[in-house]
Amino acid sequence: MTVQRADARRNYARILAVAEDEVAAHGADASLEQIARTAGVGSATVRRHFPSRHALLDAVFSERIEALRTHATELADAPDARAALLDWLAALTAYATSARGMADALTPAGTDGPEHVNACSAKLTAAAGPLLHRAAQAGAVEQDVTIGDLIALVTGIALATEHHPDPGAEADRLLALTVRGISPRT
Amino acid sequence: MTVQRADARRNYARILAVAEDEVAAHGADASLEQIARTAGVGSATVRRHFPSRHALLDAVFSERIEALRTHATELADAPDARAALLDWLAALTAYATSARGMADALTPAGTDGPEHVNACSAKLTAAAGPLLHRAAQAGAVEQDVTIGDLIALVTGIALATEHHPDPGAEADRLLALTVRGISPRT
Repeated sequence: MTVQRADARRNYARILAVAEDEVAAHGADASLEQIARTAGVGSATVRRHFPSRHALLDAVFSERIEALRTHATELADAPDARAALLDWLAALTAYATSARGMADALTPAGTDGPEHVNACSAKLTAAAGPLLHRAAQAGAVEQDVTIGDLIALVTGIALATEHHPDPGAEADRLLALTVRGISPRT
Repeated sequence: MTVQRADARRNYARILAVAEDEVAAHGADASLEQIARTAGVGSATVRRHFPSRHALLDAVFSERIEALRTHATELADAPDARAALLDWLAALTAYATSARGMADALTPAGTDGPEHVNACSAKLTAAAGPLLHRAAQAGAVEQDVTIGDLIALVTGIALATEHHPDPGAEADRLLALTVRGISPRT
């Protein structure tokens, strides 16, 4: 039993390491079959550890998600609530733009079906909620804006700039435009 | 010679019809090999008519691009320059959200290399340029905003909402937020 569990842990670690390389190279569409082959395990083993593509992406990006959660916590008491929220959105944009496949991991799970919880997105929503709440309390953001809206906008910017010659700079530009508004006059 | 040209035209029409179905079903990643098989031609024939995936997508979406160009022309003399630009952006968002693969056709061509001209995007930029210029002249949009920025933002919104239960409504919501700004205060 102990040997089995140790084997399972080793398999998990090996599959995850291979998955990280494959996702970095091919994005969210990385082949699960290729991951299984490179890791030297069967497809069924991959699917036992990662029942869906989204579950695999959640694991691949878990360290980045953790860093973004920590960053949100650090900003929770910053004196300027608006600057704190924008600082965090800039960090999210940088991560989503630099890590191939991460933007896909943050979009609602298409083929996995509506019942699948998008773990990445849920964790970020929980972590950044207080930042948005404070910014709204301070009157810097309208009350009807949700963290889901902000993650969707950043995800879209990352996806739209993926093939740009300088994705990071272009994403920053589009984020700044989204923050200030195309035409904020009412 | 005439027979050859007529054959080529028929092949082109057949490949395009099949491509429209495949892209509607599978998006921008539709298989060129599958399109060739269904059209009953060789892969080389598909590649002769459409040297790149982007060239194929340009052809598939050419009618929608034409409709958006016509719409821009109709709005060119509208009394309210800001409303005219926002009307056109809403139409672009509706097209990009409802036609699977169109948002990908509007992003810079990744694998086709930087030398490839993105025909869809170039046509829209030319058509909507006057709308943006008038809105900027009227002070409704900052001078540094480009049509490329606006197309990128709409494309991102379409990509980020692709798997949403109600993509059209969600895209409208995100566009409205982008127009007014997340936090327009400076």
